[in-house]
Amino acid sequence: MNLSTNNEIDIVRASSTKINDIDFDNLVFGNIFTDHMLICDFKDGKWQKPTIKPYEPFLLDPSAKVFHYGQAIFEGMKAYKDNNDDVWLFRPDENFDRFNKSAKRMAMPEVPEEVFLGGLHEILKIEKDWVKKGKGNTLYIRPFMIATGTGVVAAPSSQYRFMIILSPAKAYYSGEVKVIIAEHYSRAANGGIGAAKAAGNYSAQFYPTKLANEQGFQQIIWTDDATHTKLEEAGTMNVFFRINDTLFTAPSSERILDGVTRKSIIALAEKEGIDIQVRSVLVWELVEAAKNGTLKEIFGAGTAAVINPIVGFSYKDEYFELPKLEDSVALKLKDKLTNIQYKLEEDTFGWTVKI
Amino acid sequence: MNLSTNNEIDIVRASSTKINDIDFDNLVFGNIFTDHMLICDFKDGKWQKPTIKPYEPFLLDPSAKVFHYGQAIFEGMKAYKDNNDDVWLFRPDENFDRFNKSAKRMAMPEVPEEVFLGGLHEILKIEKDWVKKGKGNTLYIRPFMIATGTGVVAAPSSQYRFMIILSPAKAYYSGEVKVIIAEHYSRAANGGIGAAKAAGNYSAQFYPTKLANEQGFQQIIWTDDATHTKLEEAGTMNVFFRINDTLFTAPSSERILDGVTRKSIIALAEKEGIDIQVRSVLVWELVEAAKNGTLKEIFGAGTAAVINPIVGFSYKDEYFELPKLEDSVALKLKDKLTNIQYKLEEDTFGWTVKI
Repeated sequence: MNLSTNNEIDIVRASSTKINDIDFDNLVFGNIFTDHMLICDFKDGKWQKPTIKPYEPFLLDPSAKVFHYGQAIFEGMKAYKDNNDDVWLFRPDENFDRFNKSAKRMAMPEVPEEVFLGGLHEILKIEKDWVKKGKGNTLYIRPFMIATGTGVVAAPSSQYRFMIILSPAKAYYSGEVKVIIAEHYSRAANGGIGAAKAAGNYSAQFYPTKLANEQGFQQIIWTDDATHTKLEEAGTMNVFFRINDTLFTAPSSERILDGVTRKSIIALAEKEGIDIQVRSVLVWELVEAAKNGTLKEIFGAGTAAVINPIVGFSYKDEYFELPKLEDSVALKLKDKLTNIQYKLEEDTFGWTVKI
Repeated sequence: MNLSTNNEIDIVRASSTKINDIDFDNLVFGNIFTDHMLICDFKDGKWQKPTIKPYEPFLLDPSAKVFHYGQAIFEGMKAYKDNNDDVWLFRPDENFDRFNKSAKRMAMPEVPEEVFLGGLHEILKIEKDWVKKGKGNTLYIRPFMIATGTGVVAAPSSQYRFMIILSPAKAYYSGEVKVIIAEHYSRAANGGIGAAKAAGNYSAQFYPTKLANEQGFQQIIWTDDATHTKLEEAGTMNVFFRINDTLFTAPSSERILDGVTRKSIIALAEKEGIDIQVRSVLVWELVEAAKNGTLKEIFGAGTAAVINPIVGFSYKDEYFELPKLEDSVALKLKDKLTNIQYKLEEDTFGWTVKI
């Protein structure tokens, strides 16, 4: 992976910075953006020269295909600052690879490494002051691609825009997370786009999640759409279950996102000697474990939320509260993972990449 | 339904018209737009005053939720001109109702009738010269709504834009349509958004359709995602099968769009005394009927394509050619339907609405 300086990017600097207006102690996730953005357009069958320029709205035709057919993908990443003021990425190659897998599934052109990773490197050098020191402070990175070609005919676009925008962030969720297990609504079809970080996967969850919110639950644990018997994802995160001292998480599949945090947790758990099994967990197993007291923890895992402990779940109108543990595996693994990300502990995996 | 003049719309007229530059005999579907568009924004919890103004690109923030989470819906409708130069809509109340059903499923605000239908009436009065006389000439109407609120957090937007754009059109498909029956990829999940005209449903089909195209097929007949045994939709159309003298089409469901053309064909067939059965058709039934010669016709039905005869289908690498018929039910029903739409035959159903 080449993250060295790239001369093939046009850079237009903002005339002033907004950074002094930002209250970094009271950030709401994802609603403040840094001074610059990266744009790279695909047209005439090839990627054009990327530009880093001041963050600002841009023009699109009313018939742009992203509006009508949802041809759009994204990634979620974070930059971290260590105690020496160096800025680090966590497994950026994984996000780059997945982005292009998503692109392929959505019939969009793959983005070259020098645009995605090279461009990210350049914009992070410019915006390094937006990455604040201290565990919990991050700069959330949102690479995305939209279909900008025009025409209201349901076919792939011939023009696309790849962008990177950056948002300073603290925690994604605040407060306790209770979940409800999906009995009717679903996140993904067999042979569908569930494994892609495609825009349409997310808005499809909004209405069922709103119904869950109205019942007092923050998220939904999605089940397989055909039988609603297999536990698959939690909201927009992968999900782990601890029964006695074994951790379980579903295998990634066509329906389940191959999360970077998920695979890092599996590797960390293995290294820590925690028994971890990658297999489908069935709803009845979870309910039985909750009833007989062997269910110790449930947690979501994803870049935005890192590891998100779940305090209880509801299934068929019955609510199961999880125990409050002194020896939470979720919190232990979160600590290990964030120590690596913030360079507080040795990265024996080679996951961290310096900007 | 009140389609009378609405004083609650701001109108800014284009200074000139593009209409004289258009070659109306050689239109490509969906890539030419009329001089004006309608815009109505939702913010602060309510719909603002709509505006009809010159068709032009508009600004969006890079973090607009439509780009990241695909919160976007649309409708497809057509305007027709009769021999007296009057302009007609076909069952516009059905599109309006379905649009708001889609809105609900995608956690978007419902659009008021005076904005959707009242606004459509106003813009069609302005653009009436773009509707050309003669069967086959239409003005394709694309109402749509996108999430314009900002912020990269996966939750419903608080701001939306509803728009209507108009595109003069002839046929949607040209040439023969051969289809392949889906064995792996799927269009919709149980408990998913298949019944909504949500943007994400369409881009999800692009890659499997591209694979089909590469094998020489124009469209896919989608099957249920759990078993791939039930025939559901054809590309972006509903699908009908004629076995002997009985027509079959799948019931609308959570996975299958409740098409306006579909339901009009069912009503027309009943009126014409054609035996029509609304039930799931299984793949093996179709293959058996093709093998024993009782399969007479397959056709897609939708607003854009009207009725689209299919000349053959492939299943598990076996290709079945359909007979060339003198007495095609597809063409008979298409003729009946378009005669009603163009006011060439009495509309005993009360489907047509004058502008």
